[in-house]
Amino acid sequence: MWSGRTVRGETEYSMPGLSVPALGRARRIAGALVAAMLIAGGPASAADPAPGPLTIAEQGSFFVGGRDVQSDTLSTLPAYAPSGTISVDQIYVRYQIPVSAGRPPLVLIHGCCLTGKTWETTPDGRMGWDEFFVRHGFPTYVIDQAWRGRSAASPAQINAVKAGRADPNSLPAVFSAGREPAWAIFRFGPEYPKVFPDMQFPLEAQGEFWKQMVPDWSASLPVPNPTVPALSDLAKRLKGAVLISHSQSGIYPFQTAALDRSGIRAIVAIEPAACPDPAKDDLSPYKDLPILVLFGDYVDASPRWAPRLKQCRGFVAAANAAGGRAELILLPEIGIHGNSHMLMQDKNSLDIADWLSGWIDKRAPGKS
Amino acid sequence: MWSGRTVRGETEYSMPGLSVPALGRARRIAGALVAAMLIAGGPASAADPAPGPLTIAEQGSFFVGGRDVQSDTLSTLPAYAPSGTISVDQIYVRYQIPVSAGRPPLVLIHGCCLTGKTWETTPDGRMGWDEFFVRHGFPTYVIDQAWRGRSAASPAQINAVKAGRADPNSLPAVFSAGREPAWAIFRFGPEYPKVFPDMQFPLEAQGEFWKQMVPDWSASLPVPNPTVPALSDLAKRLKGAVLISHSQSGIYPFQTAALDRSGIRAIVAIEPAACPDPAKDDLSPYKDLPILVLFGDYVDASPRWAPRLKQCRGFVAAANAAGGRAELILLPEIGIHGNSHMLMQDKNSLDIADWLSGWIDKRAPGKS
Repeated sequence: MWSGRTVRGETEYSMPGLSVPALGRARRIAGALVAAMLIAGGPASAADPAPGPLTIAEQGSFFVGGRDVQSDTLSTLPAYAPSGTISVDQIYVRYQIPVSAGRPPLVLIHGCCLTGKTWETTPDGRMGWDEFFVRHGFPTYVIDQAWRGRSAASPAQINAVKAGRADPNSLPAVFSAGREPAWAIFRFGPEYPKVFPDMQFPLEAQGEFWKQMVPDWSASLPVPNPTVPALSDLAKRLKGAVLISHSQSGIYPFQTAALDRSGIRAIVAIEPAACPDPAKDDLSPYKDLPILVLFGDYVDASPRWAPRLKQCRGFVAAANAAGGRAELILLPEIGIHGNSHMLMQDKNSLDIADWLSGWIDKRAPGKS
Repeated sequence: MWSGRTVRGETEYSMPGLSVPALGRARRIAGALVAAMLIAGGPASAADPAPGPLTIAEQGSFFVGGRDVQSDTLSTLPAYAPSGTISVDQIYVRYQIPVSAGRPPLVLIHGCCLTGKTWETTPDGRMGWDEFFVRHGFPTYVIDQAWRGRSAASPAQINAVKAGRADPNSLPAVFSAGREPAWAIFRFGPEYPKVFPDMQFPLEAQGEFWKQMVPDWSASLPVPNPTVPALSDLAKRLKGAVLISHSQSGIYPFQTAALDRSGIRAIVAIEPAACPDPAKDDLSPYKDLPILVLFGDYVDASPRWAPRLKQCRGFVAAANAAGGRAELILLPEIGIHGNSHMLMQDKNSLDIADWLSGWIDKRAPGKS
């Protein structure tokens, strides 16, 4: 397995992405100088607290996918008509394109019970991955999964039950994650409110994190989730995107590639809830496709995550035996310690983003 | 009543905000030159199709407000625990601060069945008000109302009914607006699918607009909506914000001012569903506060909106009799025609934003 410890930048261009702490201050400064030359308006040090103004070529938002649904239980209120057509299954996409976009487009796909907010300003107010990647030359696309956040759900079945036209059992399986049970899932500690030693998640700002959590309809949606065909449309539009998933959405990029490989340059699955199953799934969609499965710290101490890590190890081995280019990395293996399941919000989040930039430069170089 | 037709910029600085079509090309060019000098990275022409790179000093997102709720019906799924604590009532806020922020912070508050997407890229792919105002020197804050979009709702009552622990009647009054009944509410025409003559809404891209619509929980929330105290907190944090509402949220800035005037520099109510009621509401919170109530076109042809316009006219007159500085403007009165209820997305949306910038310069000048 490839390890960040032994990597050396093959070109000057790939160096900024490799300035993890383990690589030392000298390399970080060299990388900073290269990046300062290459990327207009962006800082080069991963965790620069005052990065200065950001110049972007273009920003905006749009929807991908979607399906019209006609219903006569859209409302139970006298002021709003019950019958009409709505659109569901589309995904909301917000993007920023840097002036010097020398790197490929990234699609950031959040996990369970969360929205695209996952990748924005951290709970303790530091720069999110969304801005970091733009500052480092990646066109960056942040989505809300279908039926989540700014991507519409339908209240039709709720109103059918409220109006007495359907059984309560038919209500959607929409749930929220309480912070006490979620604590161990996010691996802040073994159980609420215990904390793993040297934890990098900014627990002093946990209140702001809990506010990010929203109701999750995914258990009431078909498999694959409607987000998957929408991601496929988006990747084709971007002509070569790196799909970066997290947790619940871990399987989505793999399902997207199984649907259609075109437009997908690489897959980065951050702490996926599941990898494809070599015993059931066709592995040919992953032949020659750069794939990174990335986990944080304390995984072996987690009854929830240790089996998922093991399952993904099995997938990576099987995919490579079938001609794949898959890697599985635990951050402690490359000298980065203390990371929770929410590693894109941990105190060293930008060091990880910086390391990930280097992985993309090496495994999926170029722009779209 | 003050009319844009007779306005002249009192300082050079206020000129860019006044380049509405009625003011002519010469003024637009003069305004462009001034703005180019004053605002780094931003275009000055309202509807420039290729505005060039945008330089911002800072961007990010955060939450304001919020309340912890303990529940034992957060989930009916075996994989997720039913009991725990979640946070609701907070509002999601996304902001961008221009490098030369010589104008006051704006808070953009969307209306019924929509989210902050309202103010972003228009359905036909043009620049949204969110970016226009940043390019013109306003720190700009876009929110999702409480229980909408990226601001969490609670599924607890849905799951209580699904689990047989509560009556179907107790389900929340959450609704979606079907496009056919919404057509006349948005004043695209008198009824679906008829279109008012010279309509400025980009109906060729209406599919993208319908995808913006999400379920609306407001009828199941207390009055005032939890968005209101959160707006108050936000305004105080911004030390002098202009609160810009739309439609359903029209009453929120007035309720916010009634709660606490500090932090509120001005109110702009775009096509409000309601203005304060002089027969019931205390008007003293509005004394000396710059207030603009702004309506588009075809209002008299709308049985839904004509009475609301009349009600707001009554409020403006009463507020001014009580020492207020309120104005009500119909866009046709200042030479801007063809606007729907979604005037921030109409084809002339940036001309209206430009005119609004001028109103703010005149009535609520300075920065925070």
